Amino acid sequence: MSKPIYTSSADAEAAFYDALARSDLDKMMSVWAEDDEVVCIHPGGPRLVGLAEIREIWRQMMANGARLDIEISQAVVTGNAMMAIHSVFERISIAESRRRSPLIAATNIYLRGALGWRMVMHHASPVPDADPLADLAPRIVH
Amino acid sequence: MSKPIYTSSADAEAAFYDALARSDLDKMMSVWAEDDEVVCIHPGGPRLVGLAEIREIWRQMMANGARLDIEISQAVVTGNAMMAIHSVFERISIAESRRRSPLIAATNIYLRGALGWRMVMHHASPVPDADPLADLAPRIVH
Repeated sequence: MSKPIYTSSADAEAAFYDALARSDLDKMMSVWAEDDEVVCIHPGGPRLVGLAEIREIWRQMMANGARLDIEISQAVVTGNAMMAIHSVFERISIAESRRRSPLIAATNIYLRGALGWRMVMHHASPVPDADPLADLAPRIVH
Repeated sequence: MSKPIYTSSADAEAAFYDALARSDLDKMMSVWAEDDEVVCIHPGGPRLVGLAEIREIWRQMMANGARLDIEISQAVVTGNAMMAIHSVFERISIAESRRRSPLIAATNIYLRGALGWRMVMHHASPVPDADPLADLAPRIVH
């Protein structure tokens, strides 16, 4: 099965969070560039380098097939014709859970190649909880 | 006084860590792109967006003029002619302190513009301490 081609970094990012929400490992890995230098850092976790390490941790994280609610907010996007940096806030909770999840800042970087836009970096870490009434409008300049 | 022009992302990164080691705020800010979308996340701190917020936090952090020992290791570098992503481990301690500092993973992103290479993102967060005997050789592909 050939992998999908993402025609923008926004498409690739939508696929990334959709794959996470559905515990869809194949779709998750379709987002990542086939490059030895890809890097993934989950909140509180070690730095993972290369597709094999990254796939194995996602496999473990997705093994129970959880459905997740994912709220993405306050995107700051920059880049150029070949690269995009998305800085976003994530709140990720088990679907239908009422517990408020911690606030995570994620840096997602995408490069444009022959096979479309692919992720090369995901760096996520907890940040102090923002004022829930703070400006939630996305800030996008591209 | 005109700002220096950094002719590679490696030059910009060297200036970044030298400025941090010496508590040199002007040099630190010379590394950052003059762009509304620059983002800085210090370990455990909030996401800062824009030069004014970023400068103010560095000013506070550097106010006591501390001299720091900074050890950078295990760089993974990727990018293209216009952009570079550096993933590094940092250990930062007060100069001549004997205490082992926590291990920090930093994602540093540089863009090339008319004024040379400038930083647009610094995302730093604690990671589990690596095996001190693990491979310390830099991995650089560019």
